[in-house]
Amino acid sequence: MRPAARNRLDPYPSRCTETPDVLARNDPVVYGRHDRDAPFAAGQLVRYERDGFLILEPPFETAELALLQAELERLRASVGASDFVIAEPGDSTLRSIFRVHELSPLFRRLVRDARLVRRAEYLLGGPVYVHQTRLNYKPGLRGKEFYWHSDFETWHVEDGMPRMRAVSVSIGLSENTEHNGPLMLIPGSHRDYIACVGETPSHHYRESLRKQEYGVPDPDILAALTRRGGIKSVVGPPGTTVMFDCNAMHGSNGNITPQPRSNVFIVYNSVHNALQSPFGPEKPRPEFLAARLSFEPLEPIAGKLPPGADDGR
Amino acid sequence: MRPAARNRLDPYPSRCTETPDVLARNDPVVYGRHDRDAPFAAGQLVRYERDGFLILEPPFETAELALLQAELERLRASVGASDFVIAEPGDSTLRSIFRVHELSPLFRRLVRDARLVRRAEYLLGGPVYVHQTRLNYKPGLRGKEFYWHSDFETWHVEDGMPRMRAVSVSIGLSENTEHNGPLMLIPGSHRDYIACVGETPSHHYRESLRKQEYGVPDPDILAALTRRGGIKSVVGPPGTTVMFDCNAMHGSNGNITPQPRSNVFIVYNSVHNALQSPFGPEKPRPEFLAARLSFEPLEPIAGKLPPGADDGR
Repeated sequence: MRPAARNRLDPYPSRCTETPDVLARNDPVVYGRHDRDAPFAAGQLVRYERDGFLILEPPFETAELALLQAELERLRASVGASDFVIAEPGDSTLRSIFRVHELSPLFRRLVRDARLVRRAEYLLGGPVYVHQTRLNYKPGLRGKEFYWHSDFETWHVEDGMPRMRAVSVSIGLSENTEHNGPLMLIPGSHRDYIACVGETPSHHYRESLRKQEYGVPDPDILAALTRRGGIKSVVGPPGTTVMFDCNAMHGSNGNITPQPRSNVFIVYNSVHNALQSPFGPEKPRPEFLAARLSFEPLEPIAGKLPPGADDGR
Repeated sequence: MRPAARNRLDPYPSRCTETPDVLARNDPVVYGRHDRDAPFAAGQLVRYERDGFLILEPPFETAELALLQAELERLRASVGASDFVIAEPGDSTLRSIFRVHELSPLFRRLVRDARLVRRAEYLLGGPVYVHQTRLNYKPGLRGKEFYWHSDFETWHVEDGMPRMRAVSVSIGLSENTEHNGPLMLIPGSHRDYIACVGETPSHHYRESLRKQEYGVPDPDILAALTRRGGIKSVVGPPGTTVMFDCNAMHGSNGNITPQPRSNVFIVYNSVHNALQSPFGPEKPRPEFLAARLSFEPLEPIAGKLPPGADDGR
């Protein structure tokens, strides 16, 4: 049964009925034309369109990666408790730092890197801006799982992102193995919109960043998605980079291995897809989770990450 | 610092000091001679001795496996709450059924199967008996992790198993993938005895079967073990069988995939290694966790698992 939309203009209603549902995606996956100027190798766009994600050859060189890793450690050591620092459920271990592109000149430079921006622009068919950034730390020995979800479902309901026209980039800053709770994606899941049951209380976002209780997909639908598409883990050495569609179903298991897992996460949104009022609760979530102060296009910067970027602009 | 043994006859003291320690293993890994009659292929014994475990080509045929899977479902549907049925932490989902070789004629036959018993006898250098059996169910979507541990550490401290002369056999009854929380082993970890801190309260075993709080190895020692030996997951189709030394460090991550994971687990102990009084608490754990009513050697039974075994005896 199709959930009743809160208003007739909502193309992707969710959390407004007591039964889950699968709705058709009404948006392209790749907005750019498949031409010879595409910043992708042959076959990559077809795979992105089919699977909803693409694992890239590491786009950064070893020295650049070392800069990013050092900046990760610097931020981890220097940030105190704050609205945009989230801990593991059940303890105070740092889990995520948001808005790192405003906290750190190096990450400010990273989000403008032409190797990332040109690809995002191509996939989304035009200029892009940064919707969200964060550093994720999954500690060893007691890293918690993160249950299956579509980012778009949350961004649509809670943040007012109107259409599926955003792409996430995750750059591994540690080794990701099959054992330490890597990102898992369900290939092909981006082609359906999984409408979830229930409603969304206000101000639940702090807990939901630790552990999801809203926007949770139905078990039978999840089982059907994995029967159809299987599951793919993103594993590889530090620097391994994945781009995935905003509606790709993903999650991760816990991590009892001693090897922590960390990554930097950037969400590019099309300037033609700027946030509106949320489709769910009246009050939008804060700026660090969903930028709405400015939708100015990013100016891509060519070349390698400069060693000096962490001490100036 | 070597922990003070509770008595000077304890070769493997644990949970009796406030500092963890690594003690040398003072027992063989393979007790049998490496001769041409060994029920192992060339190289397998060397690998078992080096790694502390061995993944076998599935020793059971498809029809036999179907019998075991059907019996698993029958037991799951028919057992009620009981001392030897353990649920997932935080909910009532069935996690393990113990003493299945006494609950079920088919599993009674399985533990005597010559394909298993002959191998266990060879590794342990003589007749063996069943120390413990269980069926494990790890549900999909919300299967919990099981933290690193050496079974021997618990069996020694809490059950009075004197020496390292037992082997566990785990037979997968569902597919084990890299994603659904498979058994993880640390190769080479069986060569050290990791003495744990703290003491053992009486009657804690019901909770500890859900979630460990005692006999937990030190994080730095775990990190050193994995740096040295890495981590190996046991993955494969239903029927995949692993034999592992009683002192091999192992655990498993949670499972958010929709695919449940189940296996049957049999512990063979040498009749020369029969249980004594526990080396830790005074009162031993119950019979379903650690057999001590009889140490009679098993008589191996040749041939395939008989289809009628589930309606006899």
